[in-house]
Amino acid sequence: MNMLLRSHAEEIIEKSIRAVMPDTAVKRALSGRVFSGRVVLVSAGKAAWQMAKAAWDEMEDAIDAGVVVTKYGHSMGAIGPFQIFEAGHPVPDENSFLAAQAAIDLVSDLTENDTVLFLLSGGGSALFEKPLVDGETLKDITSQLLASGADIVEINTIRKRLSMVKGGRFAEICAPAKVFSVVLSDILGDPLDMIASGPAYPDASTSEDAVRISQKYDLRMSDDVRLLLKDETPKRLDNIETHITGSVRELCRAAQSACVSLGYETVILTDELCCEAREAGSFLASILKTHRDTDRNLAFIAGGETVVHLKGTGKGGRNQELALSAAEALDGHKNMAVFSVGSDGTDGPTDAAGGYADGDTRMAIEKAGFSVFDMLKNNDAYTALKAADGLIFTGPTGTNVNDVAVALVRAACQEA
Amino acid sequence: MNMLLRSHAEEIIEKSIRAVMPDTAVKRALSGRVFSGRVVLVSAGKAAWQMAKAAWDEMEDAIDAGVVVTKYGHSMGAIGPFQIFEAGHPVPDENSFLAAQAAIDLVSDLTENDTVLFLLSGGGSALFEKPLVDGETLKDITSQLLASGADIVEINTIRKRLSMVKGGRFAEICAPAKVFSVVLSDILGDPLDMIASGPAYPDASTSEDAVRISQKYDLRMSDDVRLLLKDETPKRLDNIETHITGSVRELCRAAQSACVSLGYETVILTDELCCEAREAGSFLASILKTHRDTDRNLAFIAGGETVVHLKGTGKGGRNQELALSAAEALDGHKNMAVFSVGSDGTDGPTDAAGGYADGDTRMAIEKAGFSVFDMLKNNDAYTALKAADGLIFTGPTGTNVNDVAVALVRAACQEA
Repeated sequence: MNMLLRSHAEEIIEKSIRAVMPDTAVKRALSGRVFSGRVVLVSAGKAAWQMAKAAWDEMEDAIDAGVVVTKYGHSMGAIGPFQIFEAGHPVPDENSFLAAQAAIDLVSDLTENDTVLFLLSGGGSALFEKPLVDGETLKDITSQLLASGADIVEINTIRKRLSMVKGGRFAEICAPAKVFSVVLSDILGDPLDMIASGPAYPDASTSEDAVRISQKYDLRMSDDVRLLLKDETPKRLDNIETHITGSVRELCRAAQSACVSLGYETVILTDELCCEAREAGSFLASILKTHRDTDRNLAFIAGGETVVHLKGTGKGGRNQELALSAAEALDGHKNMAVFSVGSDGTDGPTDAAGGYADGDTRMAIEKAGFSVFDMLKNNDAYTALKAADGLIFTGPTGTNVNDVAVALVRAACQEA
Repeated sequence: MNMLLRSHAEEIIEKSIRAVMPDTAVKRALSGRVFSGRVVLVSAGKAAWQMAKAAWDEMEDAIDAGVVVTKYGHSMGAIGPFQIFEAGHPVPDENSFLAAQAAIDLVSDLTENDTVLFLLSGGGSALFEKPLVDGETLKDITSQLLASGADIVEINTIRKRLSMVKGGRFAEICAPAKVFSVVLSDILGDPLDMIASGPAYPDASTSEDAVRISQKYDLRMSDDVRLLLKDETPKRLDNIETHITGSVRELCRAAQSACVSLGYETVILTDELCCEAREAGSFLASILKTHRDTDRNLAFIAGGETVVHLKGTGKGGRNQELALSAAEALDGHKNMAVFSVGSDGTDGPTDAAGGYADGDTRMAIEKAGFSVFDMLKNNDAYTALKAADGLIFTGPTGTNVNDVAVALVRAACQEA
C-alpha cells in the first residue's frame, strides 16, 4: 500500500465528513445572522436533534421555543425549552402527527416580524406529518400506489395533497412570519420540493398531475379524497429563505479544500454521480491512468450515490465496490489511488464506511488467495478489501449527504 | 433538438477523425524530417496502404523500395515502386508469410546509415508474420490457447516466440539500419509491444513467462517448439525510434482543438475509457448536470473503448448506447449534449458511427412511442436514436483508433 496516499485519503475523508455534519451545516448557515422579532425553531428529520442542538448553541436566548422531531432512539436529551419528539420512520406514526401539530401550534400566532427557524434533514417526510385524511386512508392509498408501480415523484405528488404540511403548506401556515430554512440534503441535485416533501418550498407538482396519476393507476378513493387532490399546493411563497448548507455539494467542496491543503490541483467532476458503482470506479481509474505521467498532483472528485445491482452473495457496499473495481485498473501504478466513502459512515450492510485502492491493492488481494474479478462478481468487496487493508472505517457519523469518491494521482517524478 | 449543439457535434467529430486518418498521422510524423542513407518502407496493417501512400506522397524519391501488406480488398492500387500484398486477417495466411519474407529480404542488406520506415497499424499481427514453425503447428497451439481460456497477453507471449518478426525481432533483422516506426494505435494505452505484436519494439514478456503459460495450460507441443519458447525476444533495441502519431490520444486532442475553436473550455478526462457504455453515458451526463448553471462553455472529452454486455435483441453499438443512456439524464436540460463516435466510422453492426443526445432527445424518443429505459434494456439504441435524429453517420473512415465521447454544456445565460 502507498502509505502517503492512504494517509491523504484518511485526512480528506475526515475533513469532508466534518464539513457536512449537521452542527457544522447549521452553524455555517446561522453564523453572524441576527433575526428581528420572535424566533421559534422547528427541526425535523433524522439529524433533527443535532441540528436543533447546534442552533441552540449558536443562538440560545434568541430562540423562544421549539419543536424537534427525529427518529426513535435519535434524541440525545433535552435542549433548552424545546419539545422533543421521536416518531416513526420510514412510515409515519401518531408521534409524527403530534409533532407536526405541536409545530403548527407553535407557529400559528406569529407576526410578520417573527421568524421560524426551520431545520430539515432526510426522513422529514415521515417524521413530520399531519395528514388531512385518517391514518387508514393514507396507508391504503400509499399501498395502492406502491402496488401499481408508481415512482417516488408520483407517490409524493399524491401525498403532498393529503397533507397539511407537505408541498409548501407548512410555510403557508407560518405566514405572515418568515421561514428561514436550513436544509441537509440527502437527494442528489437538492430538489427542495422533494427533500422531506418540501414543507417550506413551492411545490413543482400540480393538482392536475395528481388527478392524472390517480386515473393512470385507477386509485380507489372516496369523494372527499378526490376533492383534496384538486386542492392546489403553494406555487409561490414570499416568506421563505432557504439555505442548503449540508449536501453532497458541500461534501465535494470540503474534499476539494482538503485536497488543496495537501497540495493537489482539483477538479470536481460531478456531485450527481448515479451510475453503477463498479463502472464509476473504472471510469475514475481511467482518468488517473491517462494522467500517469503528470508532473502535478491531481485530485478528481465525484460525489453522488452510485448503485449496485446485486448478483452475488458476498458482503460489501457501493463505495467498497467502486474502490475494488478501481483496484483492478490501478494495478502496478505507484502514484495513484481511488477511494470512496458514504458520509453517513456506513456502506451497505457492513461496518465499513467505504473503500480504498491503489496500485498495490490487487496484488495484496491475490496474495490473500482471492481474485478481484471473482470478488466483484460475487459482490464481495468487503472481504477483498479487508485482505488488502483497503476498508475505511469512520463509525456512524450522524449525517447523511450521500457519498464522495476521490481519485488521486501524484507527479510521476516524485514517486520514482 | 438543440441545433447549435448538434452542429458543434458534427464539426468536432469531423475534425477529430480527420486528425487521426492514416495519411494525416503519417504526414505529421514525417513532416520536415530528412533521413540520411537509403530509406526503405515496410507498411503493415489494416491501414497499411493509406499509410504507405501518404509516406510516398510526402517523401517520394527519398524512398528506394517498399513492402506493403494489408487486408484483402484494402489495397487501392500501385504506389511508386512498392510491392503490395493482400493477406489474411484475423488469421494469417500464406500471403502474410510471403509479405514478411519480402520485408526481411528488403531490409537484410542495409547499413547503419540506412533507415527502415516502418508503418504499423491494427491487424499487423496477422498480416505481417513469418512463423518459426509450420502453419499447422502454429494453428494447433493457437487453438489450444483459445480453448484453454488464455487471455490475449498470454497468447501473444507464446506466439511472439514462434515468430521471426514479432516481439522486436523484425527490428533486430533490420539492424544495423535504423527503424523509424510510425504507429497508428488501436489498443488503449498504446502498449507498443502489443500493437501488431510489436515487431520493432522491445518485448515486455519473457521466455520464463512463456514456459509458465505453456505449463499453466498444459499445452501439447514438440520438443522443437519447447526450445523456441526458451529463445528470448529482444529486451533492448538501440536502432529504433517510435512515433505514435495516430491514437485515441490524438483523437481526443483533436476533439479538444475543435472544441476550443468553437469557444469551449476543455478537459480531457481520459483516453483510456473502458467501462460499460451506458454507465459512461450516465457519468458524463452527471458531470454536465453539475455544471448546469455554468457561465462558461465547457467540453469534457473521454476517449477509449467502452463495452456493451448484450442482453437484448435490438440494434446498436457502444457509442449509440452511451448517447442513449445520457439522453435519460439530460432530459429537459437545454444547454447540454453528449455524443460518442467510433473513429472507424462504424459502431456495432450498424451503418451509424455513433450517437448524439441532448435535452430534447428523450422526449423525441417517447413521442415516437418508445421508452429510453426499454430501448436500453433491449440494446436497441439505433432504433431509439433514429427516432430522435440522434444517429451520427460518417461512413467507414479508413482509420481505427478507438472512440471519443464528448460532453458539452453551454453557459446557462446564453440559452435562457
